[in-house]
Amino acid sequence: MGYHQSRVLITGGLGFIGSCLARRLVEAGARVTIIDNLREYHGANFFNIRDIASEVVVHSGDVRQRHVMEALIANSDFLFHLAGQTSHLHSMDDPLTDMEINVEAQLNLLEVCRQRNPGIKIVVASTRQVYGKPCYLPVDERHPLQPVDINGIHKLTAEQYYNLYFELHGINSCILRLTNTYGPGMRIRDASQCFVGSWIRALIEGETMRVFGDGTQVRDFNHVDDCAEALLLAGANGTANGRTYNLGSGEHISLLALARKMATLGDGGAYACIPFPPERKRIDIGDYYGDISLIRQELHWTPAVSLDDGLPDTVAYYRRHYHQYILPN
Amino acid sequence: MGYHQSRVLITGGLGFIGSCLARRLVEAGARVTIIDNLREYHGANFFNIRDIASEVVVHSGDVRQRHVMEALIANSDFLFHLAGQTSHLHSMDDPLTDMEINVEAQLNLLEVCRQRNPGIKIVVASTRQVYGKPCYLPVDERHPLQPVDINGIHKLTAEQYYNLYFELHGINSCILRLTNTYGPGMRIRDASQCFVGSWIRALIEGETMRVFGDGTQVRDFNHVDDCAEALLLAGANGTANGRTYNLGSGEHISLLALARKMATLGDGGAYACIPFPPERKRIDIGDYYGDISLIRQELHWTPAVSLDDGLPDTVAYYRRHYHQYILPN
Repeated sequence: MGYHQSRVLITGGLGFIGSCLARRLVEAGARVTIIDNLREYHGANFFNIRDIASEVVVHSGDVRQRHVMEALIANSDFLFHLAGQTSHLHSMDDPLTDMEINVEAQLNLLEVCRQRNPGIKIVVASTRQVYGKPCYLPVDERHPLQPVDINGIHKLTAEQYYNLYFELHGINSCILRLTNTYGPGMRIRDASQCFVGSWIRALIEGETMRVFGDGTQVRDFNHVDDCAEALLLAGANGTANGRTYNLGSGEHISLLALARKMATLGDGGAYACIPFPPERKRIDIGDYYGDISLIRQELHWTPAVSLDDGLPDTVAYYRRHYHQYILPN
Repeated sequence: MGYHQSRVLITGGLGFIGSCLARRLVEAGARVTIIDNLREYHGANFFNIRDIASEVVVHSGDVRQRHVMEALIANSDFLFHLAGQTSHLHSMDDPLTDMEINVEAQLNLLEVCRQRNPGIKIVVASTRQVYGKPCYLPVDERHPLQPVDINGIHKLTAEQYYNLYFELHGINSCILRLTNTYGPGMRIRDASQCFVGSWIRALIEGETMRVFGDGTQVRDFNHVDDCAEALLLAGANGTANGRTYNLGSGEHISLLALARKMATLGDGGAYACIPFPPERKRIDIGDYYGDISLIRQELHWTPAVSLDDGLPDTVAYYRRHYHQYILPN
């Protein structure tokens, strides 16, 4: 896809999606540099790049540090910006930190691109959370943008930065609005990246998977391999410049049906519906699934891994590598 | 209107609109505290409060400083948040400073309210710039929000904060989307608050008023007295809680017609159409005027000062007090 010998910078490259992308880029012959703040809470884990550790350059640093970003960006052809604070709950408890990471750092990064390397191509991970509570389903990219939590507000602000810098300064970027992503490398200590992580942990530990509410709310899911493929297509294809695309699977499933499916993967895995904790209820978006026609048409992306294939492999991965993801208390 | 003996905090109270509001509140018997960073570039001018200086408390400080805001907010019934970076051009040159003032400080301020004084009522000055290039005219509050510059993006982010803190934390606030505001107390050194300021200066100095483009673009205007009245109504009326209203005059005028009108107020005032400077052209929004039905209906606000009445008085004010607003070079 045109990445051979190209210089690629991945922010958050030790994390869940960033490490999967790094692996694909190494396979494609790219020269990959990772910058990561190593915060386990944000998903950084050296184990995620164990097989490519000698083939990538890893910098420990924070995207909020301008001097760090300047040198790295000046020497890159592609920037995949995956570093971020992803927890909706945490964004409500500590909104200023979420702002620093998801707003200030992105603006800083774009300013560095404008001043030091306006020819760079950026692919940025945004989130379906920018839509807020869906007005209709499936949600397409023209849906109103009415985020219901601080994290959603900040991701939307960042999207507007990328669009503005594309329109006014000609900085090429593509925004992907990710939905629930699962697969090897995800954080399973808690639900801060995706609740599926905490369900996998419960399944392996013989605990009950907790479904909030009555479990009828529907969601869509992407396996991390499909997500990485979309990132690669968005970076390589000029059609994607200045564009915003939903990811998703084109299908949807209720949380109860998902829990039932996952329970079959454990040794008598249990699940239970429990009332929404109030701090989650107030920022819950109800039913969601995305329309992925646009990225199918324009970038020819088609998700290839079904839940029925992806979930068993993922659970098996965490059974094998449990202690790499659950630190002793 | 219920401000008698109430404790009112005005951020940016030495500025154009803040000082006019402070005067009205002092007349209404409120106990007014002003916090202002004294930055002349942002419009701070002690001359603006010369007649009420002994009746208000003025703190020199920045809304970005949390410890300063904590004590002030804890002891206030009303907060009028008028401090801000208003220059669209400046926001493009130095986007991170605009972010600190128009995003970070607002989030900080709301966090302080949530933690220290959730019963406070906030009225916040936003801007028509959140709409971007109008899709239709007049622009009502349901118009898409597609800002075309950094300042517009940041003001929109702040609006979303206020709405979220109202919905989730019950912090009462009202957002007013201001349009071009003119009148005594405005900055006339340059066009950073409103281009009318720079036209007034040109008129008084016998220079040519510069109209960008062909002058056919239309705008609407509010006299600062009408703007202050809207702020007061929004603060006093519970109907306004959680609401967003356009200001405006319900009328519109082309920039050429405005220049012609203003030229009659000088001694042979001159004006000329000149090509848009590129840095202005790329963030120009074309024609704009707002629909003010909503605030008319819900708060019974009616702008009372026409351009034909307000402009001569304003120009006369600056003839009298020129040296209070134009510092020697």
